[in-house]
Amino acid sequence: MLSIFILGNGRMAKHLASAFQQTDVQIAGVYARDETKGNSFAKQFNVPFYSSITKVPVQCDVYFLALSDQAIVGISEQLKVQGLVVHCSGMLSKFVLQKQKHFGVFWPIQSFSENLNVDFKSVPICIEGNSEENTRILEALADRITNNVQILNENQRQQLHLAAVVVNNFTNHLYVLADSFLKSNQLSFNLLKPLIIETAHKIINLEPHLAQTGPANRNDINTIEMHQKILAHNPELLHVYQILSNSIILHSNKNMEECL
Amino acid sequence: MLSIFILGNGRMAKHLASAFQQTDVQIAGVYARDETKGNSFAKQFNVPFYSSITKVPVQCDVYFLALSDQAIVGISEQLKVQGLVVHCSGMLSKFVLQKQKHFGVFWPIQSFSENLNVDFKSVPICIEGNSEENTRILEALADRITNNVQILNENQRQQLHLAAVVVNNFTNHLYVLADSFLKSNQLSFNLLKPLIIETAHKIINLEPHLAQTGPANRNDINTIEMHQKILAHNPELLHVYQILSNSIILHSNKNMEECL
Repeated sequence: MLSIFILGNGRMAKHLASAFQQTDVQIAGVYARDETKGNSFAKQFNVPFYSSITKVPVQCDVYFLALSDQAIVGISEQLKVQGLVVHCSGMLSKFVLQKQKHFGVFWPIQSFSENLNVDFKSVPICIEGNSEENTRILEALADRITNNVQILNENQRQQLHLAAVVVNNFTNHLYVLADSFLKSNQLSFNLLKPLIIETAHKIINLEPHLAQTGPANRNDINTIEMHQKILAHNPELLHVYQILSNSIILHSNKNMEECL
Repeated sequence: MLSIFILGNGRMAKHLASAFQQTDVQIAGVYARDETKGNSFAKQFNVPFYSSITKVPVQCDVYFLALSDQAIVGISEQLKVQGLVVHCSGMLSKFVLQKQKHFGVFWPIQSFSENLNVDFKSVPICIEGNSEENTRILEALADRITNNVQILNENQRQQLHLAAVVVNNFTNHLYVLADSFLKSNQLSFNLLKPLIIETAHKIINLEPHLAQTGPANRNDINTIEMHQKILAHNPELLHVYQILSNSIILHSNKNMEECL
């Protein structure tokens, strides 16, 4: 039976604990600097809590540094264990952990909410070990919680992280801008929710460029000008509107040329 | 029993036909310029097809101009009927139809795919008639296919249309850019799909600004610089990356100030 130890008490830590708890993997304990939060996390999953990093058991199979990028190196340097130590960052090199004998990366491509009801089975997990054997251990672990394990090198993982920022952070920011624009006009963002859900679901079975519609895509200058007039007193959204409309026009022209 | 007539054979026309077919509303016929497509559309819904606009029956209750913004005025001027004539545009004024005695707007806030399985019941429909009575007729019609009828004036509808472009067209364009970036690095866009679905679903119960995560939101300059290096040979995505990251930083600072 594989045993794991989780360092951290944020959303990544909790989602990992929740996912592994439904498998045959033993969660040997959790460590967190914040004693109150760490205790409550440990109780939630009925596992031992360690508030001192020097007391962390040394013989677990895998240690998850489910921490912010900034905290990973510092905590790793204090962690003296024999098992495989991995971080869960999309951007950091595995070599930030090279003081360990066994190290690697275990990065799920997902943005975790407080709500633990994520269907982990469909979440791709990108893994990388410092040896063939360590990669195999991570693969065996990831296999237990997802149907989608990806063995990727550092460049590939960083490219995916960047793309994840584009489709998650930037998309969410478009929601923020639309929400704020509608609020300032006493209109409810709720009216856009069915459209937002449909926009995401549409690209499950359709290539994104085939799903594109709207004024910029059809070069409808009238509508684009009317929108820009509406945004005359909203320079921030106006700027984003112009940059993205121009980028769509550029792409739709490219697609037109490909069709000629 | 209310009777309607549909002009157009695009996705809006088909989704309206599909939605009304499941109600007590009678679809008296469809008109389209393209005889082959129009005939096939009429057969699909088992309703009469009219290829000549002068032969369209004059006594239906409501006529839907489910046409592109460019075609609406031209077709409306040829349409000589007694009933209420509406267009389905988010941007056009109802007054483009003012040669009709009874006119209005019937705009569902949704981007319709070829696939007809949209759950219309949750799609907000924005209506506006040129008289109280005509607004009531449109309300009665919309009530039959959705649980979310909105009586909005022109300004409000145009503001919503703009916001819909932001959350639909611009979001989809971010998918296009991410897809194209990943393809150029031999990585599959499929890896992002679970994240894309989660990103959309997250804001159903959470205000968008509370759902924001990522390097720009936490002012993580290291990651932002690494991403920009990765994009050194991709000026288009780099530009979008910078504009949206800056806009996120601006917003997260605003939220910080509000907390102080």
